[in-house]
Amino acid sequence: MTVLATPCAPLEPETVPATIETMLYEFLDGQVRAAADLPELALFTDLLRTMIAAGGKRIRPVLCLVGWQAASDLAPPPAVWRVAASLELFHLFALIHDDIMDASPTRRGKPTAHHRLATHHAGRPDADTLGTNAAILLGDLALGWSYELLHTSHPSPTTEHASRAWPLLNALRTETLVGQYLDLLASGPTPTTLPTVSAACRVIRYKTTKYTCERPLHLGAHLAGAGPDVLAALSAYALPLGEAFQLRDDLLGVYGAPERTGKSVMDDFREGKQTVLAATALARATPAQAHTLHAGLGNPYLTCAEAARMRQIITDTGAQATVENLITERYEQALAVLDHAPLRPPAVAFLRTMAAAVATRTS
Amino acid sequence: MTVLATPCAPLEPETVPATIETMLYEFLDGQVRAAADLPELALFTDLLRTMIAAGGKRIRPVLCLVGWQAASDLAPPPAVWRVAASLELFHLFALIHDDIMDASPTRRGKPTAHHRLATHHAGRPDADTLGTNAAILLGDLALGWSYELLHTSHPSPTTEHASRAWPLLNALRTETLVGQYLDLLASGPTPTTLPTVSAACRVIRYKTTKYTCERPLHLGAHLAGAGPDVLAALSAYALPLGEAFQLRDDLLGVYGAPERTGKSVMDDFREGKQTVLAATALARATPAQAHTLHAGLGNPYLTCAEAARMRQIITDTGAQATVENLITERYEQALAVLDHAPLRPPAVAFLRTMAAAVATRTS
Repeated sequence: MTVLATPCAPLEPETVPATIETMLYEFLDGQVRAAADLPELALFTDLLRTMIAAGGKRIRPVLCLVGWQAASDLAPPPAVWRVAASLELFHLFALIHDDIMDASPTRRGKPTAHHRLATHHAGRPDADTLGTNAAILLGDLALGWSYELLHTSHPSPTTEHASRAWPLLNALRTETLVGQYLDLLASGPTPTTLPTVSAACRVIRYKTTKYTCERPLHLGAHLAGAGPDVLAALSAYALPLGEAFQLRDDLLGVYGAPERTGKSVMDDFREGKQTVLAATALARATPAQAHTLHAGLGNPYLTCAEAARMRQIITDTGAQATVENLITERYEQALAVLDHAPLRPPAVAFLRTMAAAVATRTS
Repeated sequence: MTVLATPCAPLEPETVPATIETMLYEFLDGQVRAAADLPELALFTDLLRTMIAAGGKRIRPVLCLVGWQAASDLAPPPAVWRVAASLELFHLFALIHDDIMDASPTRRGKPTAHHRLATHHAGRPDADTLGTNAAILLGDLALGWSYELLHTSHPSPTTEHASRAWPLLNALRTETLVGQYLDLLASGPTPTTLPTVSAACRVIRYKTTKYTCERPLHLGAHLAGAGPDVLAALSAYALPLGEAFQLRDDLLGVYGAPERTGKSVMDDFREGKQTVLAATALARATPAQAHTLHAGLGNPYLTCAEAARMRQIITDTGAQATVENLITERYEQALAVLDHAPLRPPAVAFLRTMAAAVATRTS
């Protein structure tokens, strides 16, 4: 196994993505070297490299390292970087399996893993099925590797750090996978239940907030030996911010600029995504408006004109404005926590900037 | 977390399955208790309980413990039992995802996980898709839990044992998943390549032999501190025996009694499985026989009469007899290793009995 990148300078969050990418590339190279008798493995590691190279904010690794920084003035040790990189590999796994479940041909304008694998086998009559099945395996590999990466260590194992990280990583996995199940239940061709705001918030909590914000921050802080007050302050910041993140996502899914978001403004409607935005609009709609929304949500053949009508209804009911207000409320709530939180100043400064970026993002 | 069953009497391999099942049930109960705010998790743990209760030989846990016994006179400590139980949970994961990939409605006469999950959502128009997607998540949970179970320990963590087990568990995972990919490549509606005996053997090696026999034995022996001579002897036993196991499986898939195997004798043909049996028959077939075999392999609409003709051709070419001979050769090879292997007598006695059972099994 190669020596993974082990930066020891004080943390600069903006340098985290490049370091994490290098660690992941080195890890994948190591996998190919270790499995010399299985050259087929390179197909899978190459695909993961392509996914990493396609970009991404590495928000979970960044927050893991900022979580460390919130509780320690020391430079994060290699074990913390490994947990951070592990979170990114877990995220790649989650994306691969999510895209299979959503049958998405593209993500951020690039072909999804199952689509690439189908193309790779284009000569076969069963190329689509084979592509999906191979992508299930690719996700399985990434999930397994996300744990392998944790205990890959040179020169000496850091089992103490690893054993501290496990309970949180285990909770993150269960929450994320059950959150994904809640999301599946709340989507579909013709949702059998009306979306409610509280049900939509619960999906957000597990599928996004805990997974993307709270748990990564906790992991870093916990590895730095943070006490319950620090963890509680990080939760108090992360939970509203994570909700703001997802609420912005829902708005971008309906009103966003596809060239910036990499996502069509038809997808959320066609998938029948039970967002807070849709739930709010439905709760306030006139019977005629509600009829249009119900007919459109989960209709895979929705036309652009129909989508435009739905968008107008969401605006007319005031749901768009309400969700904007929810975002602002949550942004201010997260900021207020930072004013008195027992977190070290460099982390507070970063979290403050990040909150603004999350609340106002356009991509 | 509950105290996992920690037997400390000398090992009696026939008691292993019941202990492993108890450990798994306790572990799953602990998961439900730990996720009190996610009651939906019980759907997934209940399904795993159902799969466990449906039976199984627990061959991987048994071999892990016998591997320990091959290198130590001491009773296996809790950490070894945990690795053994982890192998069974990994196996449940592999079955769940394999059944999705094969689109199998049943396994051993019982509905598969994705089929049960579709039934659970029968009221929805997208029940089949939702069932498959939820089963992908179920497999992901089982894979993650197979690792979580490793470091669940009470009263004290046994990190030394765990860190010894990881490299072998990592290798087992990569080999099994890439082995499954090789199996996917070698199946399909109309295989684009003729099956060859050597390609079929390579699939066996990764998908079955290493995963089912060699690695579990290695894991137990390695945890007992075995040297390279013991590991080499276990490989020399396990590799031919694993091949014999799979070759018997191929014969049972064509000639077996469905009421004993729990599997239709049409499935391997319909899936176009490139077995050693099929490859041998094809290599020896007359042009007319080869035409019949090619037309039938991978034909999902194969009739019973067509399958009977294919079976007759496989017999007539002598392929059935050849595969029986390959099994006998491998069985004798495995037994011969035991005569002079540096393994402790109780393990040798068990491995000898097991070899006979594997070679002659009818279910």
